[in-house]
Amino acid sequence: MFKKYIPALEWIPNYKRSDLSGDLSAGLIVAIMLIPQGMAYAMLAGLPPVIGLYASTIPLFIYALFGTSRQLAVGPVAMVSLLVLTGVSTFAEPGSEEYISLVLLLMLMIGIIQLLMGLFRLGFLVNFLSHAVISAFTSAAAIIIGLSQLKHLIGVKLEADKDVFKIVTEAILRSSEINVVAFSIGIVSIITLILMKRFIPKIPGPLLVVVGSILVVYLFNFQSLGVKIVGEVPSGLPTFSMPTFEYQAIISLLPIAITISLIGFMESIAMAKAIATKEKYKVVPNKELVALGLANTGGAFFSAYPVTGGFSRSAVNYQAGAKTPLATLVTASLVTLTLLFFTGLFYYLPNAVLAAIIMVAVYGLIDLKEAKYLFKVRSLDGITWAITFIATLVFGIEQGILIGVGFSLVVFIGRSAYPHVAELGHLKEENVYRNVLRYSNAIVTPKVLIFRFDASLYFANMTFFENKLSERMAEKPETKWVVLDFTGVNSIDAVALHSLKELIHTYEQANITFLLAGIKGPVMDLMKKAGFTEKYRNQISYFSVEQAMQEISSKEDTK
Amino acid sequence: MFKKYIPALEWIPNYKRSDLSGDLSAGLIVAIMLIPQGMAYAMLAGLPPVIGLYASTIPLFIYALFGTSRQLAVGPVAMVSLLVLTGVSTFAEPGSEEYISLVLLLMLMIGIIQLLMGLFRLGFLVNFLSHAVISAFTSAAAIIIGLSQLKHLIGVKLEADKDVFKIVTEAILRSSEINVVAFSIGIVSIITLILMKRFIPKIPGPLLVVVGSILVVYLFNFQSLGVKIVGEVPSGLPTFSMPTFEYQAIISLLPIAITISLIGFMESIAMAKAIATKEKYKVVPNKELVALGLANTGGAFFSAYPVTGGFSRSAVNYQAGAKTPLATLVTASLVTLTLLFFTGLFYYLPNAVLAAIIMVAVYGLIDLKEAKYLFKVRSLDGITWAITFIATLVFGIEQGILIGVGFSLVVFIGRSAYPHVAELGHLKEENVYRNVLRYSNAIVTPKVLIFRFDASLYFANMTFFENKLSERMAEKPETKWVVLDFTGVNSIDAVALHSLKELIHTYEQANITFLLAGIKGPVMDLMKKAGFTEKYRNQISYFSVEQAMQEISSKEDTK
Repeated sequence: MFKKYIPALEWIPNYKRSDLSGDLSAGLIVAIMLIPQGMAYAMLAGLPPVIGLYASTIPLFIYALFGTSRQLAVGPVAMVSLLVLTGVSTFAEPGSEEYISLVLLLMLMIGIIQLLMGLFRLGFLVNFLSHAVISAFTSAAAIIIGLSQLKHLIGVKLEADKDVFKIVTEAILRSSEINVVAFSIGIVSIITLILMKRFIPKIPGPLLVVVGSILVVYLFNFQSLGVKIVGEVPSGLPTFSMPTFEYQAIISLLPIAITISLIGFMESIAMAKAIATKEKYKVVPNKELVALGLANTGGAFFSAYPVTGGFSRSAVNYQAGAKTPLATLVTASLVTLTLLFFTGLFYYLPNAVLAAIIMVAVYGLIDLKEAKYLFKVRSLDGITWAITFIATLVFGIEQGILIGVGFSLVVFIGRSAYPHVAELGHLKEENVYRNVLRYSNAIVTPKVLIFRFDASLYFANMTFFENKLSERMAEKPETKWVVLDFTGVNSIDAVALHSLKELIHTYEQANITFLLAGIKGPVMDLMKKAGFTEKYRNQISYFSVEQAMQEISSKEDTK
Repeated sequence: MFKKYIPALEWIPNYKRSDLSGDLSAGLIVAIMLIPQGMAYAMLAGLPPVIGLYASTIPLFIYALFGTSRQLAVGPVAMVSLLVLTGVSTFAEPGSEEYISLVLLLMLMIGIIQLLMGLFRLGFLVNFLSHAVISAFTSAAAIIIGLSQLKHLIGVKLEADKDVFKIVTEAILRSSEINVVAFSIGIVSIITLILMKRFIPKIPGPLLVVVGSILVVYLFNFQSLGVKIVGEVPSGLPTFSMPTFEYQAIISLLPIAITISLIGFMESIAMAKAIATKEKYKVVPNKELVALGLANTGGAFFSAYPVTGGFSRSAVNYQAGAKTPLATLVTASLVTLTLLFFTGLFYYLPNAVLAAIIMVAVYGLIDLKEAKYLFKVRSLDGITWAITFIATLVFGIEQGILIGVGFSLVVFIGRSAYPHVAELGHLKEENVYRNVLRYSNAIVTPKVLIFRFDASLYFANMTFFENKLSERMAEKPETKWVVLDFTGVNSIDAVALHSLKELIHTYEQANITFLLAGIKGPVMDLMKKAGFTEKYRNQISYFSVEQAMQEISSKEDTK
């Protein structure tokens, strides 16, 4: 019974020895990647670096027990870190005691929201984030994240922090203050990371630049030249503490908590699904929500900050041979060891290197190719991308997503309110009925209008339907029969049924008969309920336009 | 050239003598109805009764020149009056100088909004008000309007004014204060109005109760018993005055101005269209907006209050034989004469009678039959009705409409995100392919899955599509061919195209071939742009499922 809720009870007893080496090496490699990334992302979130390490322990152990993905690498990620900064920095000064305690409360809220969403099976909500919207706000967020690190890279404490235009302007105006040593270390790190990713992807670049820069700063005593370093990283494990509850804070943090719950889950499930498809097993979205929810809830009691499954580390985990969540347990154990014994090593680590790691990581998220593809295929989708991208840059991530989702739904509704319509003609050879405007050889009968409406009929498009039909009728004054091809009418609502009935009745008085062909089962059910079968039984039961046309020619012949 | 914009230049020179008697008598009857109604509705809107008469002069003259409807009777209506009260009473005390000046500013704003909407051809926006939503909020508003008059009917100055529950509670608690004479006059008026409407609809009931009650109050000196009367109605025409502009007031009034612009137009265009259809001429929605906009703009300079085309008076106008807007000109002239010479007659008119007129008028708007119909045909539409109705009663008209529109669009989106799907089988006799669950005689081939998805493919339902397809595939492990019936796919977006391509590619690797049948022109265009024709040209160009099946059997035979 428990197995249903705790996947670990399934995989631990059945663990195969052959999976061990893959899990061990993947766990090690991800840990090497995660330690500097965790510290960097914590800095991005406005938190002390050690909190990034705390967030890489308890939540990982929990996810390994409850998650349904075998390769997903959970932990701090860039997007969520930026959202934490955006959301909490309006209520407290980043880095302050109060800030950290608000972040813990936020993490608990996210945990509970995700847990509830999972239990109430609300995982489907992420389907309403169109890929165009995701790609656009991710691209914009990557730019915001990258620029938010500029201050660490150039060693200038910029005033502006979230507005990309202000950041760039201020950086240019204050270019004389740039700390040349810090900047050089950062630039060399960026170049190293890019080159290594490209040419020797097997060796983890972040580890190399971290180790290298620590040595360089230590040997040349660069901190005396004003290069900001990480400094004391407290050693030891995170201790248990209760988040502070405050009604006002909960209300203020709710919007950002909901946003992070959804965005975090979305990033996570997208990656988990991608790997599961390749490995031919199933991830269960609502169980993933529960697992992430528990990981965040647990972390909130151990000084962590919000986590989710990340793209890049999951990809590395998978490629490095992870076969089961044991890899994640290995990673978490190695981070724990680091916290116990090796935090002293990071004393001389320059902030500029952490900034470089973040910048290179997020650069890959800027996805202009997708925008190009969308514009090529359907420009409306490209416009959705552009609007979301610009809105995110100008108004912020949450607003950008909201505007993007809203716009993409408006596009969809607009499309269905003003759908494509066609008059059909007969293609003799193939014996099918197609749009006369596309098939010039389609044969049209003067007395019969065959009309196809490419949308479900509902309140918002009935007027359009009536207008289009009457336009065609005006062009074909001899019409005695109207055949409506209903194969495209996937559903119908009560308002449309009522109007349709009135429409048929009105034309009937002008001696024009409607035949409806190819009505689908669910639509027919509703037509029966609306009383169509009483009056129009013989007019609505044609399987195809062809059948309706046979009926018409037999009637016309007997005249 | 002017004729295009001023319909009056069309109908005045071509006026037919035969239309004159109808226009004259209709104009007279509507005036008799409008004078008491105008005063009653002004009272409902929190204004002195004479303003209802002012609103029945200038705006009517303007509409007669610019309107495209020949029978629409423009003037004060109950719904708009209630909206004025709701919107403006939060900023000023009803009846006060400030209140009246805000109403004039509001009227000007409504006029300009409608004018701009007409010029920018935004009339289509009202299509998004589902009939279910309109019926529900009209019904709820009718109840609110009716109860808001209770204080006049029982002669008790109730504190509560918009909250129906509070009104009823207060009226019950204070039932000892009821003015028995006023209440009796009101009840007798209500009964008279109902009986006359029912049995002698030719005689205008409001005129009778107005005249009767004035005589009774005058003769028996009822005002000394505490019966509230209209009192002094200033005689003379409304004078020109500039509305006062104030930035803060404009911002505060904007939401209510937009609401009234849309609701007013909607009521108007619905009635205009209904009559035009019967009389076989055309009303042009965007020109109607311009005409109403000009009527409201003009009225704002002559102490009127917001007007629109009303249901009941338009129906009376039409039934009484109005053939052209001349009828409206006659009505407006008669109201003008009344203002000049007969205002003194209304001195003894009891408020309870005006309340009775409003109550009887709005009672007819409560439309429970529609709710029953909706629940019978599709319960989701019934629920839309119920939610709108309750939201309007509990939260107010504007909120009720917003919630109703939002909910009805969510229903539509939800429907298209989780559409109906079917596996198809062959009906030999009819040679068509239909849902195997509905047609037990449909023949299924083990190696072929024929799958129909009843919706346009877009970002929000691609996951659902993939899940449903893979479920069917799991049930039919022998499947080598998948035929997708695309006749229901009315449109497709770039995100769905991308997923579809990946899907076909994934199954291809498992040696399963997809054939797409009945793709519509616009969808095919997009598939071409997305590069489908390069790789899958032969797999997507079947006109029908039948054609695709022939292809499969020829391939299978040659194996």
